[in-house]
Amino acid sequence: MAGRTPQRVAEVGEFGLIARIQALLEKEGARCSRVSLGPGDDAAAFRPRPGFEVLVTCDCLVEGRHFLKDRIGPMDLGRRAMVMNISDIGAMGGVPVYALVSLGLQGDTPITWIDALYRGFLEELNPLQACIIGGNLTESAGGLFLDITLIGEIESPFLTRRSSARAGDVILVTGYPGQAAAGLKLLQSAAWRQWQQHPVTAAYLRPPHRAREARRVARSGLASAMMDLSDGLVGDLGHICRAANVGGVLYEDRLPVSKPLEEASQALDCPVRSLVLGPSDDYELLLTCRPERVAEIRRLIQAAGPVPVHEVGRLTERPCRIGLAGADGRVRPVPGGGWDHFSP
Amino acid sequence: MAGRTPQRVAEVGEFGLIARIQALLEKEGARCSRVSLGPGDDAAAFRPRPGFEVLVTCDCLVEGRHFLKDRIGPMDLGRRAMVMNISDIGAMGGVPVYALVSLGLQGDTPITWIDALYRGFLEELNPLQACIIGGNLTESAGGLFLDITLIGEIESPFLTRRSSARAGDVILVTGYPGQAAAGLKLLQSAAWRQWQQHPVTAAYLRPPHRAREARRVARSGLASAMMDLSDGLVGDLGHICRAANVGGVLYEDRLPVSKPLEEASQALDCPVRSLVLGPSDDYELLLTCRPERVAEIRRLIQAAGPVPVHEVGRLTERPCRIGLAGADGRVRPVPGGGWDHFSP
Repeated sequence: MAGRTPQRVAEVGEFGLIARIQALLEKEGARCSRVSLGPGDDAAAFRPRPGFEVLVTCDCLVEGRHFLKDRIGPMDLGRRAMVMNISDIGAMGGVPVYALVSLGLQGDTPITWIDALYRGFLEELNPLQACIIGGNLTESAGGLFLDITLIGEIESPFLTRRSSARAGDVILVTGYPGQAAAGLKLLQSAAWRQWQQHPVTAAYLRPPHRAREARRVARSGLASAMMDLSDGLVGDLGHICRAANVGGVLYEDRLPVSKPLEEASQALDCPVRSLVLGPSDDYELLLTCRPERVAEIRRLIQAAGPVPVHEVGRLTERPCRIGLAGADGRVRPVPGGGWDHFSP
Repeated sequence: MAGRTPQRVAEVGEFGLIARIQALLEKEGARCSRVSLGPGDDAAAFRPRPGFEVLVTCDCLVEGRHFLKDRIGPMDLGRRAMVMNISDIGAMGGVPVYALVSLGLQGDTPITWIDALYRGFLEELNPLQACIIGGNLTESAGGLFLDITLIGEIESPFLTRRSSARAGDVILVTGYPGQAAAGLKLLQSAAWRQWQQHPVTAAYLRPPHRAREARRVARSGLASAMMDLSDGLVGDLGHICRAANVGGVLYEDRLPVSKPLEEASQALDCPVRSLVLGPSDDYELLLTCRPERVAEIRRLIQAAGPVPVHEVGRLTERPCRIGLAGADGRVRPVPGGGWDHFSP
């Protein structure tokens, strides 16, 4: 055995792997503040910040359903899994602080793959001074899964709900919704290798989060509702409409289309409009506000970084009806859209 | 479609299932206190109790690894998954308050199965006035999994760590460690049907938690370390020994053996000692204290319910060495023990 480096999860075992991960986190992770008990006991413990509420979200990635191991590397997978959750805390206006990582692994997974996965987590957590305080490792013969619980904090007055949107509000989005969907479709295509470096593929593999932008908007109190785009523009607008009992009209000629998205649309032979409107997890922001606040919100977001902000529609009084207004002014219903985990 | 009741997860879809679960929780779940935002937004939000620390733990059950769907019903599975987590918060001395439930489901799962699973969660949460504030549903073609994050609260001075155990301390356990292991082995045996009603099978399928007992002990400050038994007596004692840099001796003639455990040991043709010492998740308490505090701890635990408390050994100064003392006074090393998720 001497001189032989352990290579697979089954060789180092659960407790060996836990020790290895803890060493990596201690060496490469941000320092945890207000944590009285980190990984290794029955539960982790932290002292909440006085005057703040605690936010908590969890999101899960399952091999075969949300990712294919030969199309995304462990570092990108780790970043993406963490971005999904950071984006949720961010869209409430909060600041991410602590993560718990639950992994279902196969015994033949190389331990260097696990190292890279955790480095992906840290790539996203470290800049926010957030840290991993616990988790769980288990065997999962049926395929890998990652389930992350992310805890954040927010001052009560800044909590930005979906339900406070009002008819007449403007609908804004950041970035280019649909790029992640196009990237995923390209990665699922036969010619996936030639698209690996394309900007829409990057938008899928390494999505940004807008937690900093969202935080500025939340603190300003200018948005009536805010959420992140994880189900697609129409799907997520539907969530706001249901929560606030309003409807929405999107302007067809104002839907943002990037040059890379146009290219991908042609390559995929898929109408660009269905990419922009349909299921896509871009982790951009979808927000609503009174019309007179658009300019200020745009300024706030762009002060945080070079993120395009697009005005794409208006909320209406027709509960839960989402329409698409053409250049001729006629409003047609938008077909379904949105991501359902149990749809075929 | 008229008159037809949806039967499978795939038929009601993700959002239909979420709505159904929310309705069930609202109708049958405990009222949430201090929750400003429950399920349905990007994240849940709660106001932490002033002066308390927040505890957080997560634990996961994977089909095929931790349970077989034909050996445990959904209600018991839900209870068991919640007990695992309640037990972790309890062993720190804390009070469980909020749960997040992440499920990986197959599209052909009957929705009544999901209802029963959630009723199992509520069976354990409602008596504690704890509630479900969020979660995640996803498809998992490779098999069902449940990942629960449980949040608890504790006053800082009562936080009971593993690392504060000291040489000379007495080792106490509640209940009969090994019963759950015996129950699991019986359920895995060819003759499992005839053992379904046996007390050790019940100990596996419907384990108790000792959160109330642990809370009393934590508030008394009398225990030097406390944890729950989820890896087995030797495995979990090893966790305390490593955290506190001590060793332990268990007294062979004081190991608690229940009558049902003896029966199971004979039926399984498995020495009762290996059942008591080896991997087993009983969710009983393992705790250590100065010898003069045993009587008071016993009194505190038994004031919470009729739970046997056994003195099974002592901590020693030999770091991480665990021995078994026979009736002749000779101490022999204890073979391994403990549960490793990646062992064959």
